[in-house]
Amino acid sequence: MTNLPLTARLITLEGGEGVGKSTNMAFVAERLRATGREVVVTREPGGTPLAEEIRGLLLAPRDEAVAPDAELLLLFAARAQHWQTLMLPALERGAWVLCDRFIDATHAYQGGGRGLPAATIAALEQLVLQGRLPGLTLLLDAPVGTGMARAASRGAADRFEQEQAAFFERIRAGYLARAAADPARVRVIDAVQPLAQVQQQLSGELAHYLSAVAPGAEGQA
Amino acid sequence: MTNLPLTARLITLEGGEGVGKSTNMAFVAERLRATGREVVVTREPGGTPLAEEIRGLLLAPRDEAVAPDAELLLLFAARAQHWQTLMLPALERGAWVLCDRFIDATHAYQGGGRGLPAATIAALEQLVLQGRLPGLTLLLDAPVGTGMARAASRGAADRFEQEQAAFFERIRAGYLARAAADPARVRVIDAVQPLAQVQQQLSGELAHYLSAVAPGAEGQA
Repeated sequence: MTNLPLTARLITLEGGEGVGKSTNMAFVAERLRATGREVVVTREPGGTPLAEEIRGLLLAPRDEAVAPDAELLLLFAARAQHWQTLMLPALERGAWVLCDRFIDATHAYQGGGRGLPAATIAALEQLVLQGRLPGLTLLLDAPVGTGMARAASRGAADRFEQEQAAFFERIRAGYLARAAADPARVRVIDAVQPLAQVQQQLSGELAHYLSAVAPGAEGQA
Repeated sequence: MTNLPLTARLITLEGGEGVGKSTNMAFVAERLRATGREVVVTREPGGTPLAEEIRGLLLAPRDEAVAPDAELLLLFAARAQHWQTLMLPALERGAWVLCDRFIDATHAYQGGGRGLPAATIAALEQLVLQGRLPGLTLLLDAPVGTGMARAASRGAADRFEQEQAAFFERIRAGYLARAAADPARVRVIDAVQPLAQVQQQLSGELAHYLSAVAPGAEGQA
């Protein structure tokens, strides 16, 4: 397993608002741990004290209009801190890292949602991650109306959740475009299905991935 | 005067710790206003509520080591917000903007001080400012020992002020390299001189600049 490329041990869970990411993060972490692997569970934006403070700035509803470039740079500042102080050291010591949203979210939210140029995002991605991508990305996908209804039931909306349906349609399209461009890495899971089926599919994708990258070491996942 | 390039009306004051920037910001603002111009006085990092919150994250002493890339991206996030929501609108309506530290500080602190590649800083500069530079930059220069002694007398040190002398030597060298590379724009003022002489020199640079960019409109500066 130590011969794997560094980010083969990085698995990300992605999706828009209200697609069941929290429930399924815990499920995937549990499945991965059940194979005997060390799993570091983290999230973006966030994951270190400074990165979590940056998350706070990003999510806080505010009267001041936030420049899209400023939002993008804040996200990458949090990512640089998270990557260099938590994710990279964990991967380098051989741990698996499971991250709630990562680089695909930036393409979906800031690229699709805010309309920022893909080239700008790619340049920052190169600066901060040197082109590294997760080994496996599980994308929970649901129609915007379904997700928004679930998210609305959770109480006060953050700065992103306050956006209109068209913003979330662009995010969903951004995510699906990422999956279409890299279907072996980004696996789309229909999040409208009953939870048991969603999780059966997540288990299947995980087992398939583990058997491909670490044959014989996939355990019971 | 409205025929001037946009950033001809942007004047920045630069310098390391303890070179007398605050006192001289007020002086330059006063001289500029005395010519009848509208002057917006601001600072970096900061200048808008969100950018000031980012400043707070940058300056706060913290146990967590801050990744140099994260620091750089936070600075440019604050700059993107400041530029698009305060500086650019002010310049576009014809106001003059006087800013306490700006892009040269990033080259000096993050380039010189932190050792980040000039190409990385230049790429972010292009993204956020599209290559625009101040019309005039007044660089207050003093040997590191002099500045540190003055700064130390001001009480609790922020995260930058906690650095060692070698860091400030690299910053000073970074500033002086910027001046050497663009001597018409970056004017070096010897900040060790008595204040009256520093201010006489600042007045002279300002009057010379105003007569060059706006002949006949330089007033009493």
